[in-house]
Parts: sequence; structure tokens; C-alpha cells
Amino acid sequence: MSEATSARGRLITLEGGEGAGKSTQARFVRDWLTDRGREVLLTREPGGSPLAEAIRGVVLGDWAEGVTPECEITLMFAARAAHWHATILPALQAGRDVVCDRFIDSSYAYQVWGKQVSLDAFNALQQLVLGEQRPDLTLLLDLDAELGLARARDRGDENRFEAESQQFRQRVREGFLTRAREEPQRVRVVNAECEAEQVSAQIAVILAEWSAGSA
Amino acid sequence: MSEATSARGRLITLEGGEGAGKSTQARFVRDWLTDRGREVLLTREPGGSPLAEAIRGVVLGDWAEGVTPECEITLMFAARAAHWHATILPALQAGRDVVCDRFIDSSYAYQVWGKQVSLDAFNALQQLVLGEQRPDLTLLLDLDAELGLARARDRGDENRFEAESQQFRQRVREGFLTRAREEPQRVRVVNAECEAEQVSAQIAVILAEWSAGSA
Ligand SMILES: Nc1ncnc2c1ncn2[C@@H]1O[C@H](COP(=O)(O)OP(=O)(O)OP(=O)(O)O)[C@@H](O)[C@H]1O
Ligand SMILES: Nc1ncnc2c1ncn2[C@@H]1O[C@H](COP(=O)(O)OP(=O)(O)OP(=O)(O)O)[C@@H](O)[C@H]1O
Ligand SMILES: [Mg+2]
Ligand SMILES: [Mg+2]
Repeated sequence: MSEATSARGRLITLEGGEGAGKSTQARFVRDWLTDRGREVLLTREPGGSPLAEAIRGVVLGDWAEGVTPECEITLMFAARAAHWHATILPALQAGRDVVCDRFIDSSYAYQVWGKQVSLDAFNALQQLVLGEQRPDLTLLLDLDAELGLARARDRGDENRFEAESQQFRQRVREGFLTRAREEPQRVRVVNAECEAEQVSAQIAVILAEWSAGSA
Repeated sequence: MSEATSARGRLITLEGGEGAGKSTQARFVRDWLTDRGREVLLTREPGGSPLAEAIRGVVLGDWAEGVTPECEITLMFAARAAHWHATILPALQAGRDVVCDRFIDSSYAYQVWGKQVSLDAFNALQQLVLGEQRPDLTLLLDLDAELGLARARDRGDENRFEAESQQFRQRVREGFLTRAREEPQRVRVVNAECEAEQVSAQIAVILAEWSAGSA
């Protein structure tokens, strides 16, 4: 086994509001790492294991009774616990890099800032499911919330979250930016208002600098 | 509207290990209350609303990847949040009594004592989903864990929890009894080793005394 595969892999997450370009740029990150000889697993939240995907189906479903913020955050962390245990940790331990489309910071932005679940509850769930473990690098794709929504709508698959108010989306954006201010080493802010190629170019600079630092 | 229906209803929960007789005695409690002119809703956990029943299907499923204790406790509280919001609280507010087969104390006994999730995590989830709200009365059907298992096996529907070890079931029993010692006013211990009619007779005494006190 080569040195590259015997060392633990790294977890890189993409975060941001609807239509920010997370899924588009997650593929770019995967390709960038693959081109440099890494084995890479591309995954997403909520979901990423059979159990977590079943929970995804439940939490994104359109329930007549509604989904309370308390139900939503516990489901999101349940899915994360399964995803972490069954998919992410085994890949990292096998020396693969993991690129994940949404992760812990989305729970902070959407459930704490958006849905106003208490920070105490978030912190307790984070501790329960991740302990002290965090992504090695997080790319926060930041853009005007209405611009992201327009992009997502053009693509044509609105979900329960995309039906939220403009104030909600603004709070979510502030939540992400707050998290970046609190953990500037881990969370790097990327201007996602420009064209996809220009967003990728910013990410390439961050990845090159980060890879040099973590090698 | 009569006075009886304009006042808030009461939540009575039945707790205990597998085969303790919870479902059997829940029907007895419902009938006892109905006979005294109460409107009663009989429900159960995990489950009790369409969303909560979907979560029940997920958490009791037999997943090849396994279900970690962290995933299990977050799913149980997600189901409880939905059940509380969609079913229990509306019934109580409409003046109906609610009889619930398993509730918060099962999460304490199974996930904290059985699966050894931290008490901090349990307390944070309890606070998130219930705040300071608790059942008005809890009947803990206590019996030797192996006796309960034998009863459940005779009935012939083993689930994921019934496949746990004898030590696990012993810890669960101790967890329930600890909760009863901590909240003796709310949680009443019933000897569930005797015949069903004798268990019901003990419960009738408790209900009569409790109804007189809470009327
Ligand atoms: N920089 C960009 N400029 C314009 N359009 C973009 C840009 N990046 C992605 N898009 C397009 O916007 C839409 C949303 O992009 P993408 O699916 O990558 O976003 P997302 O952040 O994953 O969205 P969601 O939160 O809904 O999953 C897609 O149609 C995509 O092709
Ligand atoms: N006191 C009793 N003595 C003997 N058998 C009993 C007694 N109470 C219930 N049973 C029988 O034992 C089995 C389990 O009872 P029940 O379903 O009420 O228990 P439970 O606590 O709801 O179990 P579970 O945790 O599996 O839902 C049933 O077949 C029931 O008829
Ligand atoms: Mg996407
Ligand atoms: Mg039962």
C-alpha cells in the first residue's frame, strides 16, 4: 500500500444556500483531487447511506402535519450519524478523501439560524454525533439568497426549504457567514455570485494552498 | 362545553421492558378512564402520527449497516417531536386524556442505560422536544427481564431490541427503576410478574388514588 492510501483521508464539505452551486462545485473538487492521484468519494447530506437516505426521504417529505424545527433537527442529525458511521468514517479510514455536499454547517445555518432551534440543542447534537471531529476543509459558497433561489428554480426542483420566506433565507446566509467567522481556518468563504468557472477558479486556489499546508 | 372537556386532558404513559404487559394494560387504562366519562386517545411510541410512524418504520428496521446508538436516540426523539406536536398536544388541549404505550422514559432506559448514550445528550433532547412538560402519570410495569422476553417470544414478534443481551435487558430494567426513584410522584412502579388481572387491579388502585388527588 502506498503512503497516500495508508494515511487517513480528508473530509471536504461544500456549504451554502439553495442554488449556490454546491453540487456543481462538489464535482469540481472531486475531479481536482482525483487529478492529483487521490481516491475520492463524493457524497451528500441528508443521505449518503441506505439508512440515511431513508431518513432523507422522511425529512424532505411533504407531511400534512408539518415538520417542526425539533423534528427536523433530530432527523438531520440521525441521518448524519448513519452517514458518518456507515460511509464517511470507513472511507477516511481507508485513506480516501470524502467530498460532501452539505454537512454539519447546514444544520447550524438552517435549523439554528433559519428555524431558530436553540444553540444548546445544536451543540449537544453536534457533540453526540461528531464529538470533536470536524471537516478538514469547508467551502462556503456565499451569494445573495434570492439569486441562489432563482438558480434553483430555473433548474426546476423546488423542495420544502425553497418555499421558506426571504427573511428565512437571509438568516440562513448570516448563519453560514457566522460559522465562517467562528472557524476561519476550516471554513473558507467563496464568492458564488460569479460564473461557475470563476467559482471553480477560486476553489482551485484554496485547494492548492490547503493541500500544500496539510501535506 | 362541559367543564370536563374544557380543562386540559392528562397524559398517562405505560413503561417497561419487552412483554411487561404495556399494550395490554394501556387498553385497561383507556377503558377505566372511558368508564368514568373521559374521552380518551390511546396511542404509542415510537409512532402515533403519520410522520412519527414513518420514523418508526425506519428506526425499527433491520439495516445491514446497523443502527448506532446516536442514530437511534435522535430518531426516537424525532418521532416523539412529531407525535407530541401532531397528536398528543392537540388531544390534551381539546380536553381528552391521552394514554401512551411507551414514552420519554423508554428513551432513558433503552438509549441511556441500555445503549449507553450520554445523559447530557438525553437531557438536551428531552429539553428540545418536551421542555419542562412531562406525563401526568407514568405506570412502570416492572418484571424480571427474562420473564418479559419469554412472554413477548410466546406472542411471536421479536424485533431488533428483543435480540439484545440479557445484560442489556437488565440495564434497561435498572434504568426504568432509577427514573422511578428520581420522580416517585410521577412514576409509579407496578409489579408486572403476576397475572394480567392482578396487574390491572394494582393499576386501578393507583388510578383511583391519583384521580382523587388530581380532580
Ligand atoms: N456560478 C453559477 N452561475 C450560474 N448558475 C450556476 C452556477 N453554479 C451552478 N449554477 C446552476 O444553478 C443551478 C444550481 O446549481 P447547483 O445544483 O450546483 O446548486 P446547489 O447549491 O447544489 O443547489 P441545491 O441547494 O438546490 O442542491 C444549476 O442549474 C446549476 O447549473
Ligand atoms: N400479566 C401477564 N401475565 C402473563 N402474560 C401476560 C401478562 N400481560 C400480558 N401478557 C401477555 O404477554 C404478551 C406481551 O404482553 P403485551 O403485548 O401487553 O406486552 P408489551 O409490554 O406491550 O410488550 P412489547 O414491549 O413487546 O410491546 C402478550 O401475549 C400478552 O397477552
Ligand atoms: Mg445540490
Ligand atoms: Mg406492546
